Amino acid sequence: MDTPDTASTHPPATSLALRRVGIDTYRENVAYLHRDCAIYRAEGFQALSKVEIHANGRHILATLNVVDDPHIVDCNELGLSEDAFARLNVSDGHPATVQQAEPPASISALGRKIAGERLNAGEFRVIVDDIAQGHYSKIELTAFVIATHRDELDREEVLFLTEAMVASGRRLDWHEPQVVDKHCIGGIPGNRTSMLVVPIVAAHGLLCPKTSSRAITSPAGTADTMEVLAQVELGVEQLQDIVRQHRACLAWGGAAELSPADDVLISVERPLNIDSPGQMVASILSKKIAAGSTHLVLDIPIGPTAKVRTMAQAQRLRRLFEYVAKHMRLSLDVVITDGRQPIGNGIGPVLEARDVMRVLENDPRAPIDLRQKALRLAGRLIECDPDVRGGDGFAIARDILDSGRAMARMGAIIAAQGSRGFDHNQPALGPLSFDVAATGTGFITGIDNLQIARIARLAGAPKVRNAGVDLFCKLGRPVAQADLLYRVHACYPADLAFARAACARSTGYTVGDAAQVPHVFVEF
Amino acid sequence: MDTPDTASTHPPATSLALRRVGIDTYRENVAYLHRDCAIYRAEGFQALSKVEIHANGRHILATLNVVDDPHIVDCNELGLSEDAFARLNVSDGHPATVQQAEPPASISALGRKIAGERLNAGEFRVIVDDIAQGHYSKIELTAFVIATHRDELDREEVLFLTEAMVASGRRLDWHEPQVVDKHCIGGIPGNRTSMLVVPIVAAHGLLCPKTSSRAITSPAGTADTMEVLAQVELGVEQLQDIVRQHRACLAWGGAAELSPADDVLISVERPLNIDSPGQMVASILSKKIAAGSTHLVLDIPIGPTAKVRTMAQAQRLRRLFEYVAKHMRLSLDVVITDGRQPIGNGIGPVLEARDVMRVLENDPRAPIDLRQKALRLAGRLIECDPDVRGGDGFAIARDILDSGRAMARMGAIIAAQGSRGFDHNQPALGPLSFDVAATGTGFITGIDNLQIARIARLAGAPKVRNAGVDLFCKLGRPVAQADLLYRVHACYPADLAFARAACARSTGYTVGDAAQVPHVFVEF
Repeated sequence: MDTPDTASTHPPATSLALRRVGIDTYRENVAYLHRDCAIYRAEGFQALSKVEIHANGRHILATLNVVDDPHIVDCNELGLSEDAFARLNVSDGHPATVQQAEPPASISALGRKIAGERLNAGEFRVIVDDIAQGHYSKIELTAFVIATHRDELDREEVLFLTEAMVASGRRLDWHEPQVVDKHCIGGIPGNRTSMLVVPIVAAHGLLCPKTSSRAITSPAGTADTMEVLAQVELGVEQLQDIVRQHRACLAWGGAAELSPADDVLISVERPLNIDSPGQMVASILSKKIAAGSTHLVLDIPIGPTAKVRTMAQAQRLRRLFEYVAKHMRLSLDVVITDGRQPIGNGIGPVLEARDVMRVLENDPRAPIDLRQKALRLAGRLIECDPDVRGGDGFAIARDILDSGRAMARMGAIIAAQGSRGFDHNQPALGPLSFDVAATGTGFITGIDNLQIARIARLAGAPKVRNAGVDLFCKLGRPVAQADLLYRVHACYPADLAFARAACARSTGYTVGDAAQVPHVFVEF
Repeated sequence: MDTPDTASTHPPATSLALRRVGIDTYRENVAYLHRDCAIYRAEGFQALSKVEIHANGRHILATLNVVDDPHIVDCNELGLSEDAFARLNVSDGHPATVQQAEPPASISALGRKIAGERLNAGEFRVIVDDIAQGHYSKIELTAFVIATHRDELDREEVLFLTEAMVASGRRLDWHEPQVVDKHCIGGIPGNRTSMLVVPIVAAHGLLCPKTSSRAITSPAGTADTMEVLAQVELGVEQLQDIVRQHRACLAWGGAAELSPADDVLISVERPLNIDSPGQMVASILSKKIAAGSTHLVLDIPIGPTAKVRTMAQAQRLRRLFEYVAKHMRLSLDVVITDGRQPIGNGIGPVLEARDVMRVLENDPRAPIDLRQKALRLAGRLIECDPDVRGGDGFAIARDILDSGRAMARMGAIIAAQGSRGFDHNQPALGPLSFDVAATGTGFITGIDNLQIARIARLAGAPKVRNAGVDLFCKLGRPVAQADLLYRVHACYPADLAFARAACARSTGYTVGDAAQVPHVFVEF
């Protein structure tokens, strides 16, 4: 929107001294100007208006907070929140100019989307670039998220959005014809299959450079759980070295600048608890394509408390994923899985890391559902190998796991990323705990994924690594009154009290007749 | 959402000392906690998470900013932004507790609206109460605004929203059977008819306690323009005294706490430039009903650059206003008016105040269009008087204006509110100015309301009172090359440069054949 034009006719602004204000405003750039600052008065700024700050040949947009305390900033200073200050890469006192921000270049395209119109590829591109570069306020971000959720995007628009998100960041190239990955749409506590699938398929020889996110609304993400075992914040060069040597990694994806607009959008989607099909497809596929994947196995769990609750809904979502993947030349294998209950026993980073290591070590205490699901997913990925016959993948995966080759590969990956010396035979669980027992006799007929996740989060997971929930019974199991259902671990009394209050409202378990156990008809 | 339950099981939190942090964050409460504060660490707060603060028997919700500078807050302090601090009504050092905020009670209703469902009256009530009480973050506010705009609200939902907005604040009762008001949906620069209609109808004897807003996206609101002449920030008691004595006032409505949720929603609608029919109806009618009006004349201007561009759209909007008004027992008279161009000559508080005073004084320089429109609107209101015959209102209004009785009443209102001694014969216009001249010969065939408003805002209006645009030609007028179209006034060089750049992109005027002048077929 005419930025060069305006800039050229705008007289050179008086300069202020930059000051790093020790306030962490997360992803929102905030600028602090004293109320008596001459520029503030002259420009007619208002609190919360957006300003454009130029310094050191760079510029950022920020939200303005007006300051009345000269100890925070005085009249000749321009304060910046920590992230904003870091973006300019200067030292305290560096001169800077500030002016009213022109609206982001994409604001008219955003307006058209809010008004319910279709956007073309170019419009998605300018919007996503503005988002990735931090030009959108939280208000604008939220407007975009709500205006593109539900059925507001047709499938071609989802493709445009995905392409734009890939283009907004870095794209890795592994210089190999096959780069495999697996991903789950989420919503099932536990379910840490990636940490098993990756070493198995790498041991088979496939290239699997896995980058994962931290938990957004769940009690643990793959990156949080892997971080119990090893460093996960790797630079791109280090990550590439490890992958070259071990055919795999299990790293946090945030440092790699893959689909950066996605990370910004999540900052709004998370508090609103929004997860619409179009945004989910664009988010997942953009990350995978930016990470250089050529073959993806995608896990869509269905169940009464899963993200996807019916087979019809799962099939609609599958087709949307397939449409976008096809046009982005990603080979996609969607598997619809049993999402009626958590997978594995532990919920929370340390508890989940314990389960994963038990499966890898073929420990008799290993949760059988986690093992079976991981083997099936790994088998599907192994069948990407042109030398493997359809149907043979599972047996190959099982052989790799049973023989200890998967554990060996995992050990090598942990060592390469930097081991944190976790002892999974004596995991240090949160020292404060309470037990939740059955209040009647019968069969476990329901385990509410959402409530179990909520309890684990209230107990402190994922931030408190060894907090969470340890499940002792799964669906269909007969229980008697006072039988232990699960144990909650925490490190802080306040967290324990929050989790206990949530359990008092609902344990997340229902006990009834064997016939009441819900069924889902899925492949595995 | 279980707040009492959680509170009762939550162990008493350690208390922190409150500290007023001299940062103005406008309507958003912000809390500042030091990163090394024990409570911050124990509770697992994150930057931008929402916290609940209890002190002095009150509680507020706030967005958390994490601080690394002990000069802003130290480890034993809880900092609050200025508005947030004021809400607790305590002094520095007062003890306070902080905990994770439970989501607002209405969050599930908001989620259903985001998902596209209809809400009932009770659900609108909890949402609007949460909004009025500042429980919503900007993200949640934006989600509500976008999820209820366009055709997302049916007319019954608009009624529920209006009722909820009235109920969320104070409601004035004038103890008279007839309380009249006029309102325009906005979008037409100048158009300061209220400041003429109010003294005219009050001189006739009608009760007209007019409360107005300041400019939101326009170069001047009625409150901004009236403030050139008199104090407008009146307490409710003072306002009532003035109305009792003079049958009218022209005050800013913000202090009266009428429909407070509306003010909060505007803070999000303004940056997004959103003005959907449902939100417009709820906003306008809730304010009028809360102000105690029984009879309202509503002005809907139509034109190529007005908010409403076709007669069909105007009629749809009229029916929606009438539906809600009927159910709220407000007698409503909608008039659809000519919105092809600005009304009056001046755009900006001082320039508009000058035009208004010229009309009141029957000065030959008074803009005739402003006079005529005000007389017609006043005539319609006067016909609310059961003793006036249909069709006689205009002549009565004209007589009141021509006889000087309107000016006398306006003088009394100004004196009662507190005169600011404005000399409309020598208005001190912004000392920096430039002229915009015709670049060809022909007739004025278009004046773009949006561009003229934008230029006036860039020149500094409404914050800089005597900045703005002074129009010398209106639609249909013949002009020759280099004839003066309008003059732009500013006080600061930067503002002048911004306005000049905008004029260089588009003057807002088009010149062509007489036949190209657009017509609208409206009553006046």
